[in-house]
Amino acid sequence: MSALPTRHEIARMDAQDPLGDLRDRFLLNEGEVYLDGNSLGVASKDALAELQDATHTEWSRDLIRSWNIAGWFDLPLELGDRIGRLIGAAAGQVVVSDTTSINIYKALHAAIGLRQGRNVIVAEAGSFPTDLYMAEGVISTLPHMSMRLEGRDGARLEDLIDDQVAVVLVNHVNYRTGELRDMAALTRKIHAAGALVVWDLCHSAGALPVELDAAQADFAVGCTYKYLNGGPGSPAFVYVAERHLGHVDQPLSGWWGHARPFAFETGFAGDPGIRRFQCGTQPILSLRAMKGALTIWDEVDLQALRGKSLALTDLFIQLVEGQCAGLGLTLQTPRDHALRGSQVAFSHPHAYEVMQALIARGVIGDFRAPDVLRFGFTPLYISFADVAQAAEVIRDVLVKETWRDPRYGVRAAVT
Amino acid sequence: MSALPTRHEIARMDAQDPLGDLRDRFLLNEGEVYLDGNSLGVASKDALAELQDATHTEWSRDLIRSWNIAGWFDLPLELGDRIGRLIGAAAGQVVVSDTTSINIYKALHAAIGLRQGRNVIVAEAGSFPTDLYMAEGVISTLPHMSMRLEGRDGARLEDLIDDQVAVVLVNHVNYRTGELRDMAALTRKIHAAGALVVWDLCHSAGALPVELDAAQADFAVGCTYKYLNGGPGSPAFVYVAERHLGHVDQPLSGWWGHARPFAFETGFAGDPGIRRFQCGTQPILSLRAMKGALTIWDEVDLQALRGKSLALTDLFIQLVEGQCAGLGLTLQTPRDHALRGSQVAFSHPHAYEVMQALIARGVIGDFRAPDVLRFGFTPLYISFADVAQAAEVIRDVLVKETWRDPRYGVRAAVT
Repeated sequence: MSALPTRHEIARMDAQDPLGDLRDRFLLNEGEVYLDGNSLGVASKDALAELQDATHTEWSRDLIRSWNIAGWFDLPLELGDRIGRLIGAAAGQVVVSDTTSINIYKALHAAIGLRQGRNVIVAEAGSFPTDLYMAEGVISTLPHMSMRLEGRDGARLEDLIDDQVAVVLVNHVNYRTGELRDMAALTRKIHAAGALVVWDLCHSAGALPVELDAAQADFAVGCTYKYLNGGPGSPAFVYVAERHLGHVDQPLSGWWGHARPFAFETGFAGDPGIRRFQCGTQPILSLRAMKGALTIWDEVDLQALRGKSLALTDLFIQLVEGQCAGLGLTLQTPRDHALRGSQVAFSHPHAYEVMQALIARGVIGDFRAPDVLRFGFTPLYISFADVAQAAEVIRDVLVKETWRDPRYGVRAAVT
Repeated sequence: MSALPTRHEIARMDAQDPLGDLRDRFLLNEGEVYLDGNSLGVASKDALAELQDATHTEWSRDLIRSWNIAGWFDLPLELGDRIGRLIGAAAGQVVVSDTTSINIYKALHAAIGLRQGRNVIVAEAGSFPTDLYMAEGVISTLPHMSMRLEGRDGARLEDLIDDQVAVVLVNHVNYRTGELRDMAALTRKIHAAGALVVWDLCHSAGALPVELDAAQADFAVGCTYKYLNGGPGSPAFVYVAERHLGHVDQPLSGWWGHARPFAFETGFAGDPGIRRFQCGTQPILSLRAMKGALTIWDEVDLQALRGKSLALTDLFIQLVEGQCAGLGLTLQTPRDHALRGSQVAFSHPHAYEVMQALIARGVIGDFRAPDVLRFGFTPLYISFADVAQAAEVIRDVLVKETWRDPRYGVRAAVT
């Protein structure tokens, strides 16, 4: 292994970082290294400023008139197009609405409707569980359908795709390991079998360049409160390829998906565009904070973002492995750049306690059962100095076995 | 007709109003009379203060830790119980989640699951349309079901309920006319036919006392951004009677409805309680504003609320009819208190233009096609002086035919 970079070399990485100026736009706690932006992104000054406008001017003063004059009603489309630019989707194919779970339900139903006669959903056993739960929910209403899972009995995804498969629901980046899939190649394989794909972008949107249109993806869903920094629980997005719009159906046929929502017609007539994937009235205050959070992306080159993300995770792996050899950590994230998202996972036999000890020392990552320490790197606000500080604290906690403090074994309900 | 109350008598009504002190807790525009709280409730100081905490302390400083320490994860249950006290629901039966439309979908599926072998949903042609659209969505996944509509070919609701009916979806207060249904009596009739009921409380929750448990209601849904003042598009609630919990199923089976959401199990196992009616991660900023908005209800006696609501609408009807005789208005709201919600509707052949002219004069109500002027009265912040001012402006606009100004004929996309 080559010599570890010096403090001076790390300072130079920050000095040369093309995204380095963006850090000041976020509200970071002094002295803390926040490596959990892949769970909840940090608040930006822009987000809070827009929310202030939304509460003090739009809600308090203009009230009901804001549906028109502040553009509340079209906000889901406006934000959808804004996110579309980050995920390689031309305008008119993305809308912000509801939750990732509910958007999975819409997308699976829509895909199955386009592939009648086929009766299988393929998904991943290692998926974030709600993807599987929502697929179960779809099957509960369409009992001719069944599910095949990658990872169950060692099955590989590619081997599960045949002419019975209607749709494949797959994560772009695995939420635990950070492994990145090749979207274009897998989409081609799925299409070759006559099936459709729903990409879950929860851990890739805003973390790296995504090219939905170029990959010929059919549907995608994703959340906005991780790398997009939209705020806690901010509504999710759904993408439908333009070639499917106007031909697709989904059962959450609420008034915001109607072609003429204000005609108050008795019968449902779906909008021919992406509005069809809306359902009911959206939480405007959360959307307005998200609008503020998204403004920064006008200044971000996604290739520079990806370059910094890989440099951050490379440095983190190098420092942790170099400084913590023999201390029980095993890298779970691929070393190959082509297979890595913007997070790094290490397993450790006492991962839960180690993470609690790290958090107490101001290095915020998270634990994922059974034994994973997960660290997310948001290139907009994480510096190379943060990475060095985190690696030092990890080493210190492991060397001193700080994690054996019984306080760190007490499990909270939510982490 | 008896003499109209004088300005002095109206001032005395305000002086004697037991809820009069609450008005100062809201951010009202000077000189404006806001009679559209049944579309979007007014911001309160409490709501904005709580939102400030949520953004500046919980999100910005405590970040991911707020899921535990600020109680974000249980907020939907906490707010659900808080709303439960306003709608006659004992604790553990109400949760705040998603939108009214999506909650209708959950409740209809759940009810149909409890009444297998029956194949009819009964609803109202005069319902707010999304109720009907969502019922269509349910039927799209359960094609053995069909719908019967009150008001189609003159059908009365009671005549449509027989032993084929699984569930009746019915509005407590009609969104256009303000007509109030007798919840206990109609629920008894529905149960006598072996069917279940889903009550839509959008226009009654926070407007008048609701007694779901006492009426033996099965399910209910409602919104929080009207009389509950939760903020634009704040998430909706759903009620499931305790006797059904543990036996009901609904297909939006997301991770927040799992019995052990943080065990990250591959298979779905529904929570036996009201959590089962959650689905995905909720928009916390919108929920935190709602939490602030709901604090005022600890000080509100619901009988006093109802008394003031009826006094406000009585006065409004009396003044408008007394001052505007022969000017084209026809009352659409029942005079009988037992049949009236907290809103008053008048039809007028040029209702759209009249409402635009009123709004320009600072009397904010709304137009509902084809010819309805709709005025909502939120007893927490509307005064008797407001009612008198509104009635005077209405008279002035009608006498002077201000509404003939061509500006008022231009229809905006949303009102």
